[in-house]
Amino acid sequence: MRLKAVLSYDGTNFSGYQVQPGKRTVQLEIENALQTICKNETKVIASGRTDAGVHAMGQVIHFNTKVKMEGWQWLKALNALLPEDIQVKEISEASEQFHARYDVVGKEYRYFVNNSESVDIFRRNVEAHYKDGINVDAMRDAAEYIIGTHDFTSFCASNTSVIDKVRTVEKIEILENEKRIEFRFVGNGFLYNMVRILVGTLLEIGSGKRSSDEMNSILKACDRTKAGKTAPAHGPGVDLNVFFV
Amino acid sequence: MRLKAVLSYDGTNFSGYQVQPGKRTVQLEIENALQTICKNETKVIASGRTDAGVHAMGQVIHFNTKVKMEGWQWLKALNALLPEDIQVKEISEASEQFHARYDVVGKEYRYFVNNSESVDIFRRNVEAHYKDGINVDAMRDAAEYIIGTHDFTSFCASNTSVIDKVRTVEKIEILENEKRIEFRFVGNGFLYNMVRILVGTLLEIGSGKRSSDEMNSILKACDRTKAGKTAPAHGPGVDLNVFFV
Repeated sequence: MRLKAVLSYDGTNFSGYQVQPGKRTVQLEIENALQTICKNETKVIASGRTDAGVHAMGQVIHFNTKVKMEGWQWLKALNALLPEDIQVKEISEASEQFHARYDVVGKEYRYFVNNSESVDIFRRNVEAHYKDGINVDAMRDAAEYIIGTHDFTSFCASNTSVIDKVRTVEKIEILENEKRIEFRFVGNGFLYNMVRILVGTLLEIGSGKRSSDEMNSILKACDRTKAGKTAPAHGPGVDLNVFFV
Repeated sequence: MRLKAVLSYDGTNFSGYQVQPGKRTVQLEIENALQTICKNETKVIASGRTDAGVHAMGQVIHFNTKVKMEGWQWLKALNALLPEDIQVKEISEASEQFHARYDVVGKEYRYFVNNSESVDIFRRNVEAHYKDGINVDAMRDAAEYIIGTHDFTSFCASNTSVIDKVRTVEKIEILENEKRIEFRFVGNGFLYNMVRILVGTLLEIGSGKRSSDEMNSILKACDRTKAGKTAPAHGPGVDLNVFFV
């Protein structure tokens, strides 16, 4: 039987999603909890990986098991076993063909910036702090160039093994509310560090270090060195991702 | 020279405010930072103590020093030395007579409850989670009995050395917004665990386990065993305090 689950996690104290020897990762904690329930090794497939310090609001996973329980029983059992920084929000039986990674139809990433005078220590793990004035309209103009299907090589960390760097960004929203700025990116998939490099570049435009039009030449250059800095993931800083599967 | 500072701290990873042997406390971290700046032991007096897991938005402290710096230099130096879960928000010279504890004119405590179906893992250290339906109006009616000057023995942890348990509660606000409830208590001072016992008792009234009128008899009884459970401080749960000095 194949099960599909939707997770939230607070990435602050994880070395990212994916299992790495000797590190505390989200995947490891989930597989440990499933081992306890299923009494055998149970591999989990996720819709995507997240870096250290990056949180998830709706990460989708699947796994196979012979254990028969109702959805609410799975929810209760897993949440009882998982640490307090991982939460199963939904779980239900899926078809045997369902695949959390290959069946993704879209992803949404959010990035939060506190643009007030000082750090909010209660949100230090979920938002980046930028004191400088930010021109949101300039960032919105720049974001227009990003919408659509493009080769995003300029916005991909150079240490990646991915060959095809063409992705489609369907929507970018930049919301502003009382000295807080929220970026929302919706697309079919994102390259390694792509959201954080986009945010870093947009912030350089917003703070006047670059013009909005530069976004177009950066994109066309297909050269990582032309784009801005990678915005921080953690302490402070975050992307919050929602996967639609 | 005497300095007055206003602090915020995230109490999650502290064993409370006050120095205790072998424990990580807020006072210890501040005194360590001051030791580095002042090159000698510098004792700090706070307007009040907070328990493990309890946060502060505006804790006031004072200390004496011979080091001469401008306020902005103190702010920068202290925030550079302090860990990321303590923040100095303001600091300035005070009169030699100023005393952070004896000069308190009022305190405000806040307590946050998430009344939705499931825990919000991103707020697990700042709000308590109660799934049961809560009648906010019943809690507001009960809170009326608490306003004023009373002997609060029923709402004080029994392991206290304080003799005089008469305090004045000036205002209680209970705010409700999209499945979140916020309690705000303003008074001249609060006994040990008083806010959390008041919240615990109000929640028993809100969830229908007790009537609003019972608050009056609990108060009059001057007996801790008559009141409700102490609401949790941490993991999940919090009081957030603001001191007016």
